[in-house]
Amino acid sequence: MLDATLAEIGPLDEAAMAAAQDLHARLTKPAGSLGALEALSVRLAGLAGTCPPPLPEPAAVAIFAADHGVHAQGVTPWPQEVTAQMVANFLAGGAVVNAFAGQTGATVTVVDVGVATPLAQPKVPAQRSGRSTPRLVSAKVRAGSRDMSARPALTRDEARSAVETGIRVAHELLDSGAGILVTGDMGIGNTTAAAALIAAFTGIDPAEATGRGTGIDDVTYARKVAVVRAALARHVPDPADPLGVLAAVGGLEHAALAGFVLGGAARRVPVLLDGVSAVAAALAAVAFAPDAVGAMVAGHRSAEPGATAGLDRLGLLPIIDLGLRLGEGTGALLAYPVVAGAVRVLHEVATFDAAGVSEK
Amino acid sequence: MLDATLAEIGPLDEAAMAAAQDLHARLTKPAGSLGALEALSVRLAGLAGTCPPPLPEPAAVAIFAADHGVHAQGVTPWPQEVTAQMVANFLAGGAVVNAFAGQTGATVTVVDVGVATPLAQPKVPAQRSGRSTPRLVSAKVRAGSRDMSARPALTRDEARSAVETGIRVAHELLDSGAGILVTGDMGIGNTTAAAALIAAFTGIDPAEATGRGTGIDDVTYARKVAVVRAALARHVPDPADPLGVLAAVGGLEHAALAGFVLGGAARRVPVLLDGVSAVAAALAAVAFAPDAVGAMVAGHRSAEPGATAGLDRLGLLPIIDLGLRLGEGTGALLAYPVVAGAVRVLHEVATFDAAGVSEK
Repeated sequence: MLDATLAEIGPLDEAAMAAAQDLHARLTKPAGSLGALEALSVRLAGLAGTCPPPLPEPAAVAIFAADHGVHAQGVTPWPQEVTAQMVANFLAGGAVVNAFAGQTGATVTVVDVGVATPLAQPKVPAQRSGRSTPRLVSAKVRAGSRDMSARPALTRDEARSAVETGIRVAHELLDSGAGILVTGDMGIGNTTAAAALIAAFTGIDPAEATGRGTGIDDVTYARKVAVVRAALARHVPDPADPLGVLAAVGGLEHAALAGFVLGGAARRVPVLLDGVSAVAAALAAVAFAPDAVGAMVAGHRSAEPGATAGLDRLGLLPIIDLGLRLGEGTGALLAYPVVAGAVRVLHEVATFDAAGVSEK
Repeated sequence: MLDATLAEIGPLDEAAMAAAQDLHARLTKPAGSLGALEALSVRLAGLAGTCPPPLPEPAAVAIFAADHGVHAQGVTPWPQEVTAQMVANFLAGGAVVNAFAGQTGATVTVVDVGVATPLAQPKVPAQRSGRSTPRLVSAKVRAGSRDMSARPALTRDEARSAVETGIRVAHELLDSGAGILVTGDMGIGNTTAAAALIAAFTGIDPAEATGRGTGIDDVTYARKVAVVRAALARHVPDPADPLGVLAAVGGLEHAALAGFVLGGAARRVPVLLDGVSAVAAALAAVAFAPDAVGAMVAGHRSAEPGATAGLDRLGLLPIIDLGLRLGEGTGALLAYPVVAGAVRVLHEVATFDAAGVSEK
């Protein structure tokens, strides 16, 4: 399934991009006055292979949830059961991602790809009217990754299974009518794995890739950097072997997110990336299939330093840059209306000719 | 009317801000993980004087349109009649601002505060279903400002009349149920006036305040800077006298926008600023009433350099920074869902306690 997906991922359609560029020049606005939105809409035309590209609606956010054996090394002050508790919060509609998804009409799907503790029952009351109910997909590959500081976090088969889960979720959401995929993640400890993945794929020093996650003190931060450094030194993952990198230091949610991105790219639908976990997964996705970058839209610049390093490597400009570091898909959902607006311009704005507006 | 409005503008409510800060700490997310959105939502609680502050919906964008006598100096390659033609385009629903307003459910009001040429008939067909029809307010103070390079652009009475038009439009939109005001502007040549206003209010050099507007060549740019410099040297406006500054080098839309901002501030409702014209007007507004800054939310960072200088002076962080330079309210409308999302968090997100999520 992975190989078939990779075979479907191809380059952007140059003719559709040229058509979008040409259309932009005829719309009632000064040339280039929409800044980065113009290049984005042109690229999305190239992705869709048609101009204008389809309006990217509705959005579908998938929150891949998993736990991390490296939690035992004391890389975060949050207890591991918070992963399961937050899954319950997502399903009850009480998290920030639910508020942002509700505002933009996005559906919310929570994918348990490796939560270690039993899933808690939702504690807060149900849905607001007019919003779709969050859905749980149970696809646990294993109950959390192993501790990367002691052994590979995953076997290659486990990593592949998680990647294929992500591909499958992408197909399901697109088959249900989604026009754009939005990445979300939940996993106490997952910025440690994200930092290790980013350092492995980009070659930057672990200290440059590692951030303070949910907010940790200096002692914990030093320990987190040391854990990432030791894991990379132990496994020496080969960046040209993305499955190997994911198995060595990945989280199950990162592997699944990589598949989710690849699934979107194979279907030529945009994938809106959230924060540092999405960026780590996106680096894996381009290692699998370089053309997958054409489907990626960077929702925001996470406060985690590894996110910026990864975005630079991918050549992606983040839409929102407001110091968010929450995950869940929140930063990407804030960027979603901008993406939709960029495409909408190509659908709705009058040309100089049609509107009777003089040109300079 | 202006004096009465200024008397109503007061400081932020500290108790409501403290309550919002306290609520943020109890919501199911790491403290501070929403970055700049947290400070924004806290400030909006202070503006409203209650926590949570009302959801800022619906949005109402007012596009203040006017022409500029300085157009005669060759500061732009666009013919002056484009202002009137674009007003027709706004009313027909064919401009970028219409596309973005439609996406967010914002109403569009076009205010002719000084268009020089007769308003053209709308040329493109009517509204998309489900969208409110753009409305025209005819409030022409005069048919364009005078050429600031030769004489004051406006009399003080004209400037005051335009400011009061802006105040009146703010009240009308709020009385009609708007939850947030969004600034828009249209006026061929208005970045020249905006640059002069920003240089006058901030004291920066005209070359630092002046940009390329809709996109001008080097010769035109040099002429534009020289025009701004000469006008400021001729009039020597006093930045402590905002009506005098607006009269000397302002556009009618800048004066009206200043009033619009003051009207929102007096009603303690947020005003979402678009680009360089809004920033110039915002500087006038704080010169009238320093506390007005509490109501201002910077929608985006325009590509015009004067916008950044003005935002720095106002101490405002722009939400979107994607190199837009279109005006009309487009950058502000892209930022609107982020503002709404920031407030929504305080309404909808579950607390740790209610959701049964462990704290660190």
